[in-house]
Amino acid sequence: MPSRKGKYTIELQTKPAVLSFASVVGKKEYEGPYGRYYDKNYNDTTLGEKSWEKAESRLQNEAVNIALRKANLKNSDIDCIFAGDLLNQCISSTFGLKGLNIPFLGQFGACSTMAQTMAVASLFVESGAAKKAVAVTSSHFCSAERQFRYPLEYGGQRTPTAQWTATAAGSVTIGTRNENLNAKVGISSVTFGRITDYGIKDVNNMGAAMAPAAAGTLLDFFRDTGTGPLDYDLILTGDLGKVGSDLLEQLTRADHVDIAPVHNDCGLMIYDREKQDVHAGGSGCGCSAAILCSPILQQMEAGRLHRVVFIGTGALMSPTSSQQGETIPCVAHLVYLTA
Amino acid sequence: MPSRKGKYTIELQTKPAVLSFASVVGKKEYEGPYGRYYDKNYNDTTLGEKSWEKAESRLQNEAVNIALRKANLKNSDIDCIFAGDLLNQCISSTFGLKGLNIPFLGQFGACSTMAQTMAVASLFVESGAAKKAVAVTSSHFCSAERQFRYPLEYGGQRTPTAQWTATAAGSVTIGTRNENLNAKVGISSVTFGRITDYGIKDVNNMGAAMAPAAAGTLLDFFRDTGTGPLDYDLILTGDLGKVGSDLLEQLTRADHVDIAPVHNDCGLMIYDREKQDVHAGGSGCGCSAAILCSPILQQMEAGRLHRVVFIGTGALMSPTSSQQGETIPCVAHLVYLTA
Repeated sequence: MPSRKGKYTIELQTKPAVLSFASVVGKKEYEGPYGRYYDKNYNDTTLGEKSWEKAESRLQNEAVNIALRKANLKNSDIDCIFAGDLLNQCISSTFGLKGLNIPFLGQFGACSTMAQTMAVASLFVESGAAKKAVAVTSSHFCSAERQFRYPLEYGGQRTPTAQWTATAAGSVTIGTRNENLNAKVGISSVTFGRITDYGIKDVNNMGAAMAPAAAGTLLDFFRDTGTGPLDYDLILTGDLGKVGSDLLEQLTRADHVDIAPVHNDCGLMIYDREKQDVHAGGSGCGCSAAILCSPILQQMEAGRLHRVVFIGTGALMSPTSSQQGETIPCVAHLVYLTA
Repeated sequence: MPSRKGKYTIELQTKPAVLSFASVVGKKEYEGPYGRYYDKNYNDTTLGEKSWEKAESRLQNEAVNIALRKANLKNSDIDCIFAGDLLNQCISSTFGLKGLNIPFLGQFGACSTMAQTMAVASLFVESGAAKKAVAVTSSHFCSAERQFRYPLEYGGQRTPTAQWTATAAGSVTIGTRNENLNAKVGISSVTFGRITDYGIKDVNNMGAAMAPAAAGTLLDFFRDTGTGPLDYDLILTGDLGKVGSDLLEQLTRADHVDIAPVHNDCGLMIYDREKQDVHAGGSGCGCSAAILCSPILQQMEAGRLHRVVFIGTGALMSPTSSQQGETIPCVAHLVYLTA
């Protein structure tokens, strides 16, 4: 049974198990520092589909199927699938997963979606509402650019604070401990964030907008559990990029908490910022999904990382709200993984 | 503890209690058959805000605040809020609720969102992940028209199968039985639906697209629980309208299940189709939210309805997917309420 610890954290006493995980990425992501860790990669941004939206759906579908195959599971073994993405009405998820015939719960947390889907899936498994559940999310550079910014053909200049939306998907299968007694990684607690808005309006600086939300949820977690940064091997945010990561470290330091020694950010990991011209780093639901569902979980299974705090951060604006002069409200959800 | 019954249904043994509920509607909805049952109504579609999107956010914010006030609760008493809407990136929810300082979990199920948010909130309460949770959703005719169809100024003709997006929001506060021993209504079980796609592409006939999803989830529920239509006082779909309701009754009849004697649809209830020129009826997340959170829950509390099966149905396409020639995948989630 889940039990509340402090004001915002929910402890999972059975520590639902990560039964399997998988990632599928595009060319630029494959060429990044963790290229060889992903399960599958495509050179062509269309994945052979007729539109970028359909390509993104396929990323998500393949990530789920590879993860299920690794755990020797059929679709009918899964009680619920939790999925979301950045596209309007979450069409990458609905079209990508519609053929699976698994009860579907769409989640919307912008780039925090991987953490949100994993957190809710874990709670369903912990409580018995599901024996096995899947969490999945994706993003695609081309579908995101044309929806949120400009047609690619326009060749708009990007500001130094801008982040590059990753073409990637990641999926995790979560089940009770009994499902696989050998499962090495489990989910020990989750902390859901409140919407935080510091008044940032610059949609080319999402990192700055999201950093306060990440700081808020992380400090809630430390307070609720009576722990600090050095109790963990890794505090992994996704995706603040360079600007947001620096701000997060500053914001927590103002609360006398120095996370720098154990902090990394999926947006800083997915590309080589020196060589790949991505400005402040990576972003998009798929960025943290792919980094978590490949190098990080692989390292946890290999015994090289034991205590990982994963914080997904999401910017909850839309082009319409920004055109109406609104600020960028943000949210961050936290999943604490142990090996 | 929740326990699985059959393949798709989850029984809630503690029957989480509906602690309070509220609805806020626009002018056309107030002029409908249930006008006097809603908590608050506005004559001006802008609600005094500068845009329709902001007006919709306000509908949602007010519905939550009224419901909390009725239950004598403060924001800080609520552990989680589950919310969603039809706008791109769910901005009615995020901007409407950002000031509440309550952990926020965005849900996307299109017009099934009221059922989805209630179902997940109930499971959180049942399992102990939350002591009290809020479920809320909204829609707004003007914000939906310009996003999904045409600018209002264009005056586009509507086809006879089209439904009218309701300007409305509804909110429910759910808590453990201990929170209010006098709570009359509880949630006994939930059934999450699978994505169903019968190949309908006509975005002016959502009812037809969604009917198979509603039939699927309802038949799953009957099979899982070994019950039939006459075991219930009301099977309430939201929102199939006239075309979809007729189709749902036909589809279930093909399975030798006749729901007609106890079936009604929020889209048929919210407007007077004879007088209000809404063609096939109402739709939008706010339609089923307002009907459930006013006349239905009021009748349950008054002892006039005891066993209500509420099925939210959602069409999961976007203008982009339709422009790319895709079909309309749909989902339906079911919440079984008892008084």
